[in-house]
Amino acid sequence: MKLSDIGELSLLKTIRKRFAVKSKDVIAGIGDDTAVIKPPRKNLLATTDMMVEGIHFDLRLTTPYQLGFKLVSINVSDIYAMAGKPRYLLLDIAMDKNTDQSFVKRFFDGIHDAMKLYGVSLIGGDISSSRKDMVIAAALIGDVKKHIKRSGAKPGDRIYVTGNLGDSACGLNVLKKIKKTVPIENTPSLTLPPRGGEMGGGDNSQLLIIKSQLSKLGLSWNTVMPLLRRHLMPEARNPKGFAKYATSMIDLSDGLFIDLTRLCDESKTGAKIFMGRIPVSGRMRTASSLIGLDAMKLACSGGEDYELLFTAPPYPPLRGGAGGVKITCIGEITKKNRIVVDAAGRESQLKATGYRHFEIQR
Amino acid sequence: MKLSDIGELSLLKTIRKRFAVKSKDVIAGIGDDTAVIKPPRKNLLATTDMMVEGIHFDLRLTTPYQLGFKLVSINVSDIYAMAGKPRYLLLDIAMDKNTDQSFVKRFFDGIHDAMKLYGVSLIGGDISSSRKDMVIAAALIGDVKKHIKRSGAKPGDRIYVTGNLGDSACGLNVLKKIKKTVPIENTPSLTLPPRGGEMGGGDNSQLLIIKSQLSKLGLSWNTVMPLLRRHLMPEARNPKGFAKYATSMIDLSDGLFIDLTRLCDESKTGAKIFMGRIPVSGRMRTASSLIGLDAMKLACSGGEDYELLFTAPPYPPLRGGAGGVKITCIGEITKKNRIVVDAAGRESQLKATGYRHFEIQR
Repeated sequence: MKLSDIGELSLLKTIRKRFAVKSKDVIAGIGDDTAVIKPPRKNLLATTDMMVEGIHFDLRLTTPYQLGFKLVSINVSDIYAMAGKPRYLLLDIAMDKNTDQSFVKRFFDGIHDAMKLYGVSLIGGDISSSRKDMVIAAALIGDVKKHIKRSGAKPGDRIYVTGNLGDSACGLNVLKKIKKTVPIENTPSLTLPPRGGEMGGGDNSQLLIIKSQLSKLGLSWNTVMPLLRRHLMPEARNPKGFAKYATSMIDLSDGLFIDLTRLCDESKTGAKIFMGRIPVSGRMRTASSLIGLDAMKLACSGGEDYELLFTAPPYPPLRGGAGGVKITCIGEITKKNRIVVDAAGRESQLKATGYRHFEIQR
Repeated sequence: MKLSDIGELSLLKTIRKRFAVKSKDVIAGIGDDTAVIKPPRKNLLATTDMMVEGIHFDLRLTTPYQLGFKLVSINVSDIYAMAGKPRYLLLDIAMDKNTDQSFVKRFFDGIHDAMKLYGVSLIGGDISSSRKDMVIAAALIGDVKKHIKRSGAKPGDRIYVTGNLGDSACGLNVLKKIKKTVPIENTPSLTLPPRGGEMGGGDNSQLLIIKSQLSKLGLSWNTVMPLLRRHLMPEARNPKGFAKYATSMIDLSDGLFIDLTRLCDESKTGAKIFMGRIPVSGRMRTASSLIGLDAMKLACSGGEDYELLFTAPPYPPLRGGAGGVKITCIGEITKKNRIVVDAAGRESQLKATGYRHFEIQR
C-alpha cells in the first residue's frame, strides 16, 4: 500500500498512537497546534539537522530503518557535544506520495529505536509530500546544567577525540562498491539490544550476495560490518565520563580538520595535531587499503564520524575508556599556529578540508 | 554570484553576523553545536512546519522574500493558536547550489522582517544543498502561561473565526492566472511599516504588465492585491484580545471544515455552522466570481487562511475587533452532530474537506 492510499490523516493517527508520550513533563504532545512542555530548571539546548536525498543519503544504499536511526543520532550528537541531555524531538518529513507504507513503517522503526536508545520523546512534526527527493529534518530540544562551548579551549589544553576516525567515511566507500542496501540492523551494537527475528530469509540471501561481493574485493564481512554500521547507523557519543574536564567540545560531522578549525576559530587559538596519534581502527586500515583509499585522509577529512572532539587541561591526564567511551589524546592547543606533525616528525600547515555544501567535491 | 561560488562557510558567516541575537535569555545563538537558552518560567511551546517546492510553493509564483516571510508566519500561527508568545526560531534550508546569492539574500530579508514583526530570534539552523527542489523548514519555540488546546470546546460554546476566510485560496487562484511573481512586498500591511524604495523600476514595469493581465480578467489591482498578500505573505493573528475567553483554539491551515472537524474530534463534540455568517470579503466574492470559482467553497475548504478558529462561552458575547483583530461568530458547538446550515436554513452534514497530503487533489 502506498502513502497515496493511506492519506495524511491516517498516517498521522498511526504516528500519534505509536509515539504517545508518557513523560509527566510533556503536558501536550502530538495532536495540537504545538506541543506544551513544562520548563526544565536547567538551560535549554536546541538544534536542528536535515538530511536530503541525493546529498546526504542514497536510497539505493540505505534502508529506511537506518535512515530514521541516523537522523535521530546526528541531532543527539549535537546535544551531546554541548554536554546536554536530549529530550524532545520534532520531525519534518517530505516524501513522494508513491512511497510504500512498509518503507514509512521501517523509517519510523528506526526513529523509534534511536529515541529509546537516547531517551528522547517525539512531541511534534510535519509530514508533507514531495515531488521526488525525500527530505527529512529533526529539531531536538535538550537541557543542560553546564554546557560546553566550542570557544573554551586554552593554549596548553590537550586535544582528545572519542572512538576511531574515518570508519564512517570508509564504510560509505565500501557501500559504494557493494551498490546496494546492507541489512546491518541486526548486527551487534555497543549499546543496543540485539534485534532478533527481524532479519528474514530475504535479508540472509542478500547478505550472501554481499559477502561474495566483498570477498572479490578481498574484504571479509567481519572487517566491513562495523564500518558500514558506523556510517549507516552511527550511535552518538555521550560525554558524561569526561564532560566535567572538557574546556571546549564539538561533534565531528564534516571531518576532523574542518571541525578542529572551527573549534580553534571559536576559541581563538592554534592547535598541534600528531597524525600518528589519530585513532584509526585496524579494520579501517585494511578496508581502505583494499579499496585503494588513504586511511589517514579518511580519518582527517572523511566526515560523518559523529565522534566528539574536545579539549581538557593537561592535568589530570584523561585515560581511555571514560564512561565506556574510548578517548585518545591527539595533540594540544597552541596560541596561534595550526600544525599537523606527521609520523616522521615533519610539520605542515593544518588545512580545513572536509565536506562543505554548495562546493564542488574533490 | 551563485551559492557554489560563495560556499557554505561564507554563507553561514553572513547569516551569523546578520542574525546575532541581543536577548539576554539567549546564552549562545548561532555558531555552536546547539543554541543555549535560559529556561522560561512559563511552559514551553514547540512546533515545526516545512514548505516543499512544487507542493507548498512554486518559485514562478512567489518571490524569495515572500517565501521567507511566509515560513516564519505559518510557524508563528501555530504558537498563536496556543495563545503563546513566539520566541526562538531554528531554520532548515535545502537548495540547489546554482541558486543565486541575491535569491538567498531576499529570502533572508523576508525571514528577518517577519522575525521583527513577531519579536522572534533566530538561534540556529542547517543549510544544505539539494539536487533540485528547494525545501525549507522551521522549528519555533515559544512560551505561554496558560495554553489553549483544541480539546476544550463545550456544547453551547460559540464558534468564532478571525479575519475573512478564503482570501488566501482566492489569491492563489488569481496568481495561477497571472502566472508570474507579484511584487507585493511594498503594499500596505496592517502591521508592517511601509518598505519604501525597494520596489525599483523593474518591479514597476512588471506591475504594469500584471495590472493589464488583471484588467483582461475584469479585475482591479486594488481588489486583488490584499488577496495575493494574504496568500503570499500571511500575517499570523495574535489572539491576545480574546484568548482569555477562548475554551479551544486551532489555526486554519488546511481549511475551515477540516480544521473545525479536528477541533471537534479533539473536544469530542459536534458543531453547527451557519454558512451565511462565514466572513467573506467583498473583494474575494468579486474576484472569485470573475475567475469562475465558488466563494463559499474557497472560504470553507480553500486552506492556508492562517486565521484562528476558536470557541468561547456564550456570555460575555465577544464583539468584533478584539485586540485589533476582527472576529466573527459563525456557529456553536453541539453535543454530537456536525451540521452546516445554508443561507436558506437547510441543514446538511459537515464534510471535512480541505487540503491533505498524499491524496489526489480535486
